Amino acid sequence: MLYFERSEFQSRVRNVKEAMYHQGLEVLLVSDPANMNYLTGYDGWSFYVHQGVIVALDQDEPIWFGRQQDGNGARLTSWLSPENIYGYADHYVQSNLRHPMDFVAQLLETNKWDKRNLGVEMDNYYFTAMCLEQLRDHLPQARISNANCLVNWVRVIKSEPEIAYMKMAARIVENVMQTAVEAIAPGVREGDAAAKVLQAQISGTDDFTGDYSAIMPIMPSGVRTSSAHLSWTDRKYESGEIVLLELSGCKHRYHAPLSRTVMIGTPPRKLEDIAGVVIDGLNQTIEFIKPGVTAEEVEQKWRSAIAGSRVVKESRIGYSYGLNYPPDWGEHTISLRPGDKNVLQPGMTLHVMPGIWLDQFGFECSEPIRVTPTGCEPFVKFDRRLFVK
Amino acid sequence: MLYFERSEFQSRVRNVKEAMYHQGLEVLLVSDPANMNYLTGYDGWSFYVHQGVIVALDQDEPIWFGRQQDGNGARLTSWLSPENIYGYADHYVQSNLRHPMDFVAQLLETNKWDKRNLGVEMDNYYFTAMCLEQLRDHLPQARISNANCLVNWVRVIKSEPEIAYMKMAARIVENVMQTAVEAIAPGVREGDAAAKVLQAQISGTDDFTGDYSAIMPIMPSGVRTSSAHLSWTDRKYESGEIVLLELSGCKHRYHAPLSRTVMIGTPPRKLEDIAGVVIDGLNQTIEFIKPGVTAEEVEQKWRSAIAGSRVVKESRIGYSYGLNYPPDWGEHTISLRPGDKNVLQPGMTLHVMPGIWLDQFGFECSEPIRVTPTGCEPFVKFDRRLFVK
Repeated sequence: MLYFERSEFQSRVRNVKEAMYHQGLEVLLVSDPANMNYLTGYDGWSFYVHQGVIVALDQDEPIWFGRQQDGNGARLTSWLSPENIYGYADHYVQSNLRHPMDFVAQLLETNKWDKRNLGVEMDNYYFTAMCLEQLRDHLPQARISNANCLVNWVRVIKSEPEIAYMKMAARIVENVMQTAVEAIAPGVREGDAAAKVLQAQISGTDDFTGDYSAIMPIMPSGVRTSSAHLSWTDRKYESGEIVLLELSGCKHRYHAPLSRTVMIGTPPRKLEDIAGVVIDGLNQTIEFIKPGVTAEEVEQKWRSAIAGSRVVKESRIGYSYGLNYPPDWGEHTISLRPGDKNVLQPGMTLHVMPGIWLDQFGFECSEPIRVTPTGCEPFVKFDRRLFVK
Repeated sequence: MLYFERSEFQSRVRNVKEAMYHQGLEVLLVSDPANMNYLTGYDGWSFYVHQGVIVALDQDEPIWFGRQQDGNGARLTSWLSPENIYGYADHYVQSNLRHPMDFVAQLLETNKWDKRNLGVEMDNYYFTAMCLEQLRDHLPQARISNANCLVNWVRVIKSEPEIAYMKMAARIVENVMQTAVEAIAPGVREGDAAAKVLQAQISGTDDFTGDYSAIMPIMPSGVRTSSAHLSWTDRKYESGEIVLLELSGCKHRYHAPLSRTVMIGTPPRKLEDIAGVVIDGLNQTIEFIKPGVTAEEVEQKWRSAIAGSRVVKESRIGYSYGLNYPPDWGEHTISLRPGDKNVLQPGMTLHVMPGIWLDQFGFECSEPIRVTPTGCEPFVKFDRRLFVK
């Protein structure tokens, strides 16, 4: 059951090989589960053990390796031929005596790739310091270099089938956000509201169900809204509290992130002021986005839109997103911030997220958008306002 | 809002310092979010950027560092003094120009820890190859060595308050598993059953709600049960299918994992045979567990219990578990398998999980247990049988 045509996977592999060639790489070890999925279709919660995909310029198909008990998963979810799927014995798993990279080094040797220019994803969660140490030990003649985000940059422009999944995720997150806004009320346990959010994320729509998101619902209340990444607790919502919602829909690992803010009771003047400034700034920023402008120009537009207000925003106001696994739906490529000179192109997808976190409370209103040939298009239809309950 | 007494956190730090001393370490950089939580209480979905806790023999309190916008989260959820919480500027985040370890190296220098014996968690997901490269570049005089799982080994014996949270997680997973067994039926979308599972995980019980699990529900059906880590899809269950359920409850990041198997319709003889052998083997194994036996002796007991049957099990039959964050609830310490000579002690907690994955289908029945002074005690009350719908 492949979620893309085999030809799309093959074209992705070709694009990655081209990027490898330009970077002087002959072999690439892909550890990022999103990149593994992008190149092969492989989808399983097995990334808690070492696994990967190897792309070599001198071989058509990539190789998948992972734990033996996940090999059937690779056969079922990827387009790879069975002979390109390698399972390692269980005694490599979380052991002090052996490391899965011992197995990988052998695999590279067997394929005569042990003296080549080998790229690795140096700053990926799933390529630990130990992975690099082991490869260096075992492959003294390999020239190992940093290919971090090489595949991520190939992923940055989405195909039409990818956009179609992102639109499905957007339909889901509209339901999810509506569910959250309705569930939040004085006396309701935060966990009960969160439970409804999770339920909505997975039950999806009448036409399709959803998948788990790469980030669990961020939904702090009260003073906890002063921080960017806190979740629910056991306590009950009280009147007079702010609730931040950074939620998402996910379909076939493609996301639609969305943030909104709920006020339980009458909003204080300061919150209303911030909401007004941020939403106006967000609107102007989205209107500005089009092919040809740079990421830092987008941030500059936001900065000038909020100039003169009391809103201060020191962190980036958005980033590229799409296909991913925990712990992040961001793509680690484009950031909307000073110094990012990447030029926007049609098919790029950004989460425009100018979150504000002050010392006592925060405010969030964001939009996931797609760069089109003439401008940009929000994925989601959901009122951009402060929700008052 | 701390979930443990300050004195418990302080005693954890003392135990870690003792382990550091025995390993010849003066400073420890903790990147594992579970270890960060264990030592400080810090809890946020911020581990997708680099962050950590630094423990030094010559300083009472640990130091927390992370992204600026998560600093308030550290102030709210940890017991650390505000002066020991360091936020780094946003331009370090996912950048080609800077790396958060630049900031960390400065922090170590400022505290005169840059020429010390520094331990790092070499094989942790959140300590990438790049982290090590950057630290080596910036701190040429530090002696950097591998302290992987040092804190995990301190965590391996749980305190009574930790056990209390694990019991709450166990109450939750009883509801979760019951919900799953009830939801699975011919014609039901797999995603709708999964949505109910997620809902039950978070809504918890009347007395307390639940937290997100470190592993999302594993619940493949049909031929997908031949692999260990696949989730739900868009399709509808059909009569004649097997469904594997590896689910969990989670409270304050402490887990209760549990596996069961559902047969929709009449079970084939082969499945009934395997279920009988596995459940009998599981029962005998649990009866055998007590302080003083080694991890490999437990596996040997399982192996002899199933001897003569047609069940073959090449992978480990369990592991230590407890406090964790995605992508794993396992502790990466004890594995129930040949060669693991760790001696079981009261307060250790194990997931006894002899999952079977054949080429066409699988069977799972597992139990989370706690080693007691005289034997062991299962956390969960849930029938050990093949559920037929």
